[in-house]
Amino acid sequence: MTSNAATQILDHLYAPMAQVDTLILHHMQSSIPLIAQIGQHIIRAGGKRVRPMMTLAAAQLTGAVKMDDACQLAAAVEFIHTATLLHDDVVDGSDLRRSVPTANTVWGNKAPVLVGDFLFSRAFELMVAVGRLDVLETLSRASATIAEGEVHQLKTTNDLSTTQETYIQVIGAKTAALFEAAMRAGALVAGAKDREVEALGRYGYELGIAFQMADDALDFSASKADMGKASGDDFREGKVTLPIILAYQAGDGDERAFWQRCIEKLDQKDTDLATARAYLESHGALKQTLARAQAAGNVAKQVLEVFEASALKSLLIDLIDFVVYRRH
Amino acid sequence: MTSNAATQILDHLYAPMAQVDTLILHHMQSSIPLIAQIGQHIIRAGGKRVRPMMTLAAAQLTGAVKMDDACQLAAAVEFIHTATLLHDDVVDGSDLRRSVPTANTVWGNKAPVLVGDFLFSRAFELMVAVGRLDVLETLSRASATIAEGEVHQLKTTNDLSTTQETYIQVIGAKTAALFEAAMRAGALVAGAKDREVEALGRYGYELGIAFQMADDALDFSASKADMGKASGDDFREGKVTLPIILAYQAGDGDERAFWQRCIEKLDQKDTDLATARAYLESHGALKQTLARAQAAGNVAKQVLEVFEASALKSLLIDLIDFVVYRRH
Repeated sequence: MTSNAATQILDHLYAPMAQVDTLILHHMQSSIPLIAQIGQHIIRAGGKRVRPMMTLAAAQLTGAVKMDDACQLAAAVEFIHTATLLHDDVVDGSDLRRSVPTANTVWGNKAPVLVGDFLFSRAFELMVAVGRLDVLETLSRASATIAEGEVHQLKTTNDLSTTQETYIQVIGAKTAALFEAAMRAGALVAGAKDREVEALGRYGYELGIAFQMADDALDFSASKADMGKASGDDFREGKVTLPIILAYQAGDGDERAFWQRCIEKLDQKDTDLATARAYLESHGALKQTLARAQAAGNVAKQVLEVFEASALKSLLIDLIDFVVYRRH
Repeated sequence: MTSNAATQILDHLYAPMAQVDTLILHHMQSSIPLIAQIGQHIIRAGGKRVRPMMTLAAAQLTGAVKMDDACQLAAAVEFIHTATLLHDDVVDGSDLRRSVPTANTVWGNKAPVLVGDFLFSRAFELMVAVGRLDVLETLSRASATIAEGEVHQLKTTNDLSTTQETYIQVIGAKTAALFEAAMRAGALVAGAKDREVEALGRYGYELGIAFQMADDALDFSASKADMGKASGDDFREGKVTLPIILAYQAGDGDERAFWQRCIEKLDQKDTDLATARAYLESHGALKQTLARAQAAGNVAKQVLEVFEASALKSLLIDLIDFVVYRRH
């Protein structure tokens, strides 16, 4: 992670994050070397480690004395995330993730499906070892919700009648649910009060919504080098994200015909991405999407008011701005 | 399930099995209808419900007073199994399962990968609701072992240097681990003594080994109608199962060249399956495989000696013969 806010959080949580990394490497080991190879590949490509950091931050903010259990749960959260990345890349047929060839590009589809299952199982082994049923309930429910969100997204792909409400349901499930559960897990294991658990869960959820909206805007705005994956991926796959919903609803007959051809029929020419960007620009669709992300971020800031001022709280607030305004 | 033994067990466990079916249908529901559609499709195609029945039998044999928790765990075990079937069919590119088109044939690869993830998550939700950490540990470890076994199998596919020892490792992980965990889960939740848990776990493991060896023999011997899936699937995919290992090791130069062309290079003609069957026959490879299955079954019978005679124990013994001598 390159932003100032995220770097500061990492400094603050440096020792436990190092412990999480050690746990991740350790629990990825298997008697079958291909598993560790693919696991390390995706963990490296996975990038920012936002979710495990959130678990640690939640634990620390709510007074965890020993961080061992929080580290274990943070590693589990990253394993769940990593398993979904492996499966997403297979499902989407993606070639690149953060400038690195995806596991399915390197090893084909078979092994990444199975290694995803392995990492998911290992996540539960890590959680079971911590021995908190409330945390297990939170994270197993989040895992089911993520899968539901991914299937829901499949159903909305190529469907321009997708409403903004449906879009929020999809990203709430596929992205925000794990952000929320990551925060809740950290708070629960630290013995936080109920209202603290609820506040941090809500912070996580809203941060996840902001994160995904910014991501969906970035797919159209970022340069390939910034993004680390091919810009316009969502467009080419016919994913109906908020920018497209806004531009389609505001568009005239010609524009709607354009979106129908590109998104519903997936009949695309080389120049279509540039045209799509022009339509998004003319209707302010990316700006509106970022404004919505900012609004979610503002809710995340507000719910932190139950906590007294601290360096860690400030950093969690900064993280919101990083998520909304990041360029990659 | 059509065998006498299995039918009798079902009669014995009729009420709890009906409860398990209700739980399965209930927990497969989702706000996304496609999930329940695919879930019901695979549950119907999945067939014999051997694994959940084992959990119930283990609980009942070791004195479970109330069967509710065992039913919940049995449903979880079936969800784990079903999730692996969905992913296996995607990984193998299978067209049919028990005479029914696979989910990937009907819906493509994307949804079955994600619905597998959903069912797997739901399995953990069901287990968490029972609240037994020892059971969660057993089943999460088994899930990781299954995925390892599947990846290991990928590595041995098309590789005729695969040893019998490696083959046992693969089927021990991909099949027997869940049979073992299904028995352990039932025994643990019933409050069984340690030696009972160990005995039933060992029974499950050996039954799983026998089951998979018989399955691997059946792939060559069963008629398509009996099998409910295309006979010779393993051969066509280049899976190196025990019958092939035995025939390859016993074969002369011409035979080895045949196996190398068919299994390692996957260069197959229409007549090759018949030739393969003739070679297996001439070396007694299927008979030897079934003898090995029977030997595993005998171990399973022996470990049941810690239990006093009962109708349920007799049925568990009969189940071994059903598994070894079934024709489909």
